[in-house]
Amino acid sequence: MPTGAQILINGLVDGGVRACFANPGTSEMHFVAALDETPELRPVLCLFEGVATGAADGYGRMTRRPACTLLHLGPGLAGGLPNLHNARRAATPVVNVVGDHALHHKRLDAPLESDIGALARTVSAWTRRTYYATELAGDVAAAVTAATGPPGAVATLVVPADVSWSQAGDAPAAARPAPARHGLVSVDAVTGAAGALRSGEDAALLLGGDAVRGAGLEAAGRIAAATGARLLGETFPARMERGAGRPAVERLAYLAAGASRQLAGVRHLVLAGAASPVTFFAYPGQGGALVPQGCAVHTLAAGAEDVTAALEGLAEVVGPGARHVREEAVRPALPSGGLTAESAAGVIGALLPEGAVVVDEANTSGLWLPGATAGAPPHDWLTLTGGAMGQGLPVAVGAGVACPDRPVLALVGDGASMYTLQALWTQAREGLDVTTVVFDNGSYAILNLELGAVGAVAGGERARRLLDLSGPPLDFVALARGMGVPAERAGTAEEFAALLKRGLAEPGPFLIACVVPPLA
Amino acid sequence: MPTGAQILINGLVDGGVRACFANPGTSEMHFVAALDETPELRPVLCLFEGVATGAADGYGRMTRRPACTLLHLGPGLAGGLPNLHNARRAATPVVNVVGDHALHHKRLDAPLESDIGALARTVSAWTRRTYYATELAGDVAAAVTAATGPPGAVATLVVPADVSWSQAGDAPAAARPAPARHGLVSVDAVTGAAGALRSGEDAALLLGGDAVRGAGLEAAGRIAAATGARLLGETFPARMERGAGRPAVERLAYLAAGASRQLAGVRHLVLAGAASPVTFFAYPGQGGALVPQGCAVHTLAAGAEDVTAALEGLAEVVGPGARHVREEAVRPALPSGGLTAESAAGVIGALLPEGAVVVDEANTSGLWLPGATAGAPPHDWLTLTGGAMGQGLPVAVGAGVACPDRPVLALVGDGASMYTLQALWTQAREGLDVTTVVFDNGSYAILNLELGAVGAVAGGERARRLLDLSGPPLDFVALARGMGVPAERAGTAEEFAALLKRGLAEPGPFLIACVVPPLA
Repeated sequence: MPTGAQILINGLVDGGVRACFANPGTSEMHFVAALDETPELRPVLCLFEGVATGAADGYGRMTRRPACTLLHLGPGLAGGLPNLHNARRAATPVVNVVGDHALHHKRLDAPLESDIGALARTVSAWTRRTYYATELAGDVAAAVTAATGPPGAVATLVVPADVSWSQAGDAPAAARPAPARHGLVSVDAVTGAAGALRSGEDAALLLGGDAVRGAGLEAAGRIAAATGARLLGETFPARMERGAGRPAVERLAYLAAGASRQLAGVRHLVLAGAASPVTFFAYPGQGGALVPQGCAVHTLAAGAEDVTAALEGLAEVVGPGARHVREEAVRPALPSGGLTAESAAGVIGALLPEGAVVVDEANTSGLWLPGATAGAPPHDWLTLTGGAMGQGLPVAVGAGVACPDRPVLALVGDGASMYTLQALWTQAREGLDVTTVVFDNGSYAILNLELGAVGAVAGGERARRLLDLSGPPLDFVALARGMGVPAERAGTAEEFAALLKRGLAEPGPFLIACVVPPLA
Repeated sequence: MPTGAQILINGLVDGGVRACFANPGTSEMHFVAALDETPELRPVLCLFEGVATGAADGYGRMTRRPACTLLHLGPGLAGGLPNLHNARRAATPVVNVVGDHALHHKRLDAPLESDIGALARTVSAWTRRTYYATELAGDVAAAVTAATGPPGAVATLVVPADVSWSQAGDAPAAARPAPARHGLVSVDAVTGAAGALRSGEDAALLLGGDAVRGAGLEAAGRIAAATGARLLGETFPARMERGAGRPAVERLAYLAAGASRQLAGVRHLVLAGAASPVTFFAYPGQGGALVPQGCAVHTLAAGAEDVTAALEGLAEVVGPGARHVREEAVRPALPSGGLTAESAAGVIGALLPEGAVVVDEANTSGLWLPGATAGAPPHDWLTLTGGAMGQGLPVAVGAGVACPDRPVLALVGDGASMYTLQALWTQAREGLDVTTVVFDNGSYAILNLELGAVGAVAGGERARRLLDLSGPPLDFVALARGMGVPAERAGTAEEFAALLKRGLAEPGPFLIACVVPPLA
């Protein structure tokens, strides 16, 4: 007779879950043991919960199917919350499996007891605790359905240890919940958008979610070709398909001044899978909404609506067009000499291979990356959707597990990398083909920018040191090698190019410490 | 006219807060800037929020006054939650300062927006959001009072960015809340305990919280000397004073079988600052309560009650005694030959200096530590109070900042160290006199124990690999040096002794990778 843990794993596999990013503890030991009997579910050990959840995010972004995490009670879930926040903002399907104390143990207030549900609900569209092993099959099916969406979401199933170790008995086969359907797109929304785009006034589509991928992106390109509408993209897309031959999409700038310039003069903004744009942070004396005065906002598709179908419908309505809106296959020449964020971007643009999965948490050092890579061979671009630092390296782990035949390139700031650096060990253990570039500028450079942007004045040593990472310097080569990842340091553009070629050519992980001056 | 941020910092300083463990972001920039004007508050940069919160825990355990953290919105707080869970279980005073979006920005659902209050309440005895700069002075005073206790607690103050950057105006001076008082101890509880201890039946005191420190511990020693009662201690004390000359307290074992043996035959268990003992986890077919059948439980003092006064009162009632209950000044001889968890404990017992602050997250590798160090010169012992891994290295940071004149010795398992390894960088930056010993056994050895204890059978490679850290091996020497901490590897007892002497003798941080076989 199967245990609850076996029922749980079987249910995950039946739901299409194929990877489990795990940092288990005692309450998850029956789950761990049951993995031996289920070769369909690949266990991937992570040394910190934030790596596990970020990896599940990366995996889900690439496959559109949920991976599961395996986390240890409330504190284990808590450690994973920052990257679950990012996954929530990316609408990534993720199923968290959180072990809990046996039900009869909870009232004893043992040291690890805490309010798991409260934690889970801050990031999950669906949260449930299972009380009987006989209910597990139904609960896990519901979790997978909730995570899968559309839209994708984080679903959290809390499994008490006694539910895992109990015999599940002859439970009736679980009724699998019907998969959710995309919401229908309203004809009014399509005709309204078409009218706006044909008005003769400046118009732009703002693309988000599925609209920057596949058939949706292609339809957006046809719409732009027919109407002259500009194609704008969310500042932080979950996964954007781009590169030579694909419709050119200009992402909104992170800083308010840049985004305002991009939107200036737009009279009609058509939202396709994106929310109405707002600034990332508030600044004294400024409003947070970015839509300019006099600009009408038209929602083509939002939330669970099928933005791909909406864009295809809109493309039909506006008809064929002749404007050229695709990226040309133009790459920068390989730069030489001093290594800066700009020349490093040139090297990446010159060398980025076709089919690469680029994970971008480069922050200020990434300013030149979109321009330098726009004409590179087609590739995917994954970004920091929720602003919770430490996303890049774990998402690269998940992308590597999801796409073993594609090169993964993680581009991360030094400060950002240090939140979840343990991801490198999992890359080494699993032999993932991830090349990591750490932009080592010795500072939280983005905070130096923001300090001025919010009008704070900090001339003193005490404040300055809170944004400075240079004393002592972080030796990323030593840190990577200490976790089994080969690594080298680049001090010139030539060295960086040689190392990037090597990292992309060799299988398995490789890290490059790319020493650049800070932006400011 | 001061800004809200300045009012906030001044209020912290007025409340006795002297250290700020920070991982700031944009919404905290005014706080950062204001630090330049307030030399009384020492800012300590941490590269991950879990380091900041663990450091605040360690600081508060040693000083009994709160440090503050500085955390960035919901995801920043979330990253710090595991060690706040430990702080909550340790009853450590901590004031979290969490920056939030400006109030007018919150409705825009910008990427970092999340439910900060829900997260905070899972670990905090007190949580408040400030809406007006003029209310900040009162709110910060209330936060410090709530954190200070007794008992100590986590208090979380959420400060929107616009509250920080606003002019605070001529706010009336905040009425400082009266400090909380210890609850009175009931005479009945004292006389009841005295009766039990004089009954002639086997009796034990179970000491927790303040009862394993200072005057409370001394009184417990007098009670034991007078009545013959055994002195037992909580499995995971927040801060235990021990060593030669101090009353001998036997901590309850972590595993249920061991604790049950220690409690077998006890007919009266007197709780002094400790809860009735329960197992850490539940196991199939076993109850979680550890009090044996036929044993009466007497609560001398609990929660906010003054356990020190209660023990002193009880000592008065039971009168003077002659039994010897103090640790003798006996240390193990320096072991030689192979390095094991047992011989490593012998080395530590032989060399532990007077006044050391020992932070113990050694897990299975720490089994022999209590015995080997019981007769060492007086020292403090800080443990993993809440079971959330990654406490040791950050708590050592906080202890180092709190006690610059005392040697800090962090004893951590390899698995545990990897949750919050970034703490080493802060040790290096601040020049903290912390010697770290990583017990490198290449596995989550405690889970190998627990796997059997919960009755799970995992013979296969897939399960085994989820408990194994050996492929690739973690090179802790490289990892420490990569963060600016000198480090060496010990493969024999002699090497370990030489390195431990060096680490304890030299100022500043030092790390020893202590290679030992796993327990199982």
